[in-house]
Amino acid sequence: MEPFAPSSFPGRLVVVEGIDGSGKSTQLMLLRKFVESEGIPLIFTEWNSSELVRETTKRGKRKQTLTPTTFSLLHATDFAHRFTYQILPPLKAGMLVLGDRYIYTAYARDTVRGMDPEWVRNLYRFAVRPTLAFYFRVPIEVAMKRILTGRVKLKYYEAGMDMGLSGDIQESFRLFQSRILQAYDAMAEEVGFEVIDATLPVNEQQRIVRAKTMKALEGYTTRRHIERMPRLYSREGQ
Amino acid sequence: MEPFAPSSFPGRLVVVEGIDGSGKSTQLMLLRKFVESEGIPLIFTEWNSSELVRETTKRGKRKQTLTPTTFSLLHATDFAHRFTYQILPPLKAGMLVLGDRYIYTAYARDTVRGMDPEWVRNLYRFAVRPTLAFYFRVPIEVAMKRILTGRVKLKYYEAGMDMGLSGDIQESFRLFQSRILQAYDAMAEEVGFEVIDATLPVNEQQRIVRAKTMKALEGYTTRRHIERMPRLYSREGQ
Repeated sequence: MEPFAPSSFPGRLVVVEGIDGSGKSTQLMLLRKFVESEGIPLIFTEWNSSELVRETTKRGKRKQTLTPTTFSLLHATDFAHRFTYQILPPLKAGMLVLGDRYIYTAYARDTVRGMDPEWVRNLYRFAVRPTLAFYFRVPIEVAMKRILTGRVKLKYYEAGMDMGLSGDIQESFRLFQSRILQAYDAMAEEVGFEVIDATLPVNEQQRIVRAKTMKALEGYTTRRHIERMPRLYSREGQ
Repeated sequence: MEPFAPSSFPGRLVVVEGIDGSGKSTQLMLLRKFVESEGIPLIFTEWNSSELVRETTKRGKRKQTLTPTTFSLLHATDFAHRFTYQILPPLKAGMLVLGDRYIYTAYARDTVRGMDPEWVRNLYRFAVRPTLAFYFRVPIEVAMKRILTGRVKLKYYEAGMDMGLSGDIQESFRLFQSRILQAYDAMAEEVGFEVIDATLPVNEQQRIVRAKTMKALEGYTTRRHIERMPRLYSREGQ
């Protein structure tokens, strides 16, 4: 078992984090389009999307039998499966992996649900440190406004209803996400987040995100381009 | 999150551990009958039997997509679920819980599969230390003989086929279970096993198991009997 360490693989890993309504998925989608337009092959992966435990998580959520411990372990299992089959192979193969949420989502959520921070960090020790982890910081009221105008219904666990913070789902959501926000803020330095002011206009944020990503990929993209198109370059030189 | 600690609950927890073919389940079944005949109410629980992840584990095993990490996490999830709903409530209610395998099975199996011992111990830190943990120690050849005469077919993961120790399932089983055996031996002192010589005749082992169990339950059983039958006793005294 490797301790949690910076990736020594030829690939690169860029992830986004932030509370619901921070706009992180929009920013990642825009970054993805940009990166693709630059001709860089990439793999896109989302938190909690593996086939292995999806049904179990759904069932547990439906029956509301998940405890903080099982909730945490199920997500870790899901992530471990996805890490092995979707993240690690492309990293080893030298590809760019873009992740919508990463282990920091678990750091934040699980500790807010009462799990020991040390325990959670140890749980994810098999993962690798990303090349770049963006944290989209946004005040809770701004996030609430975005969520409530954009969506019909808040979900039970998303609103932290299992924590018994409030019987009102909207209020529970606000209290729960506020705590998640605090948890993200508290870990920002420890995990080395690139903090983005998520109240800025979308294009302005994207400009920063692209610049920081391209900077982080500097050596990587150059080498990839050379590796991929050596004949093209030599032809141009003739 | 409580660290792994002796249970401070009014109930008692007795578990059995050992490699396949050690005879631990037979011994626990006999102990269960004896305890029931003594009028002590009990709860029986088995490793890897919770509804929550059964389907997922089955699917992962069938497709052989489980890695040591996901294998380990799935079992931990299963255990956490079962611990919350089947083990903790009876312990809090003052009952006796008998467990066919406990967290030490994970300590042994997961580390043999290559997981870090510290990581695995941390993973199960939410559990409680049993009142009594029997370890049925048996030489690998004795266990092999029992298994091969009693059963038709060895199972893929049970034989550790995922570890690539041998292409022959019987040989793989022998090598894998030998390592599990070593792991149990290595942790015996650390976790405080009551070691039973599992080559002794069944009745002889059971005699020891009952004696040690009744000794461990001494204060407990007396109190239970008094609590349960106060009127009966007072009638007899009239």
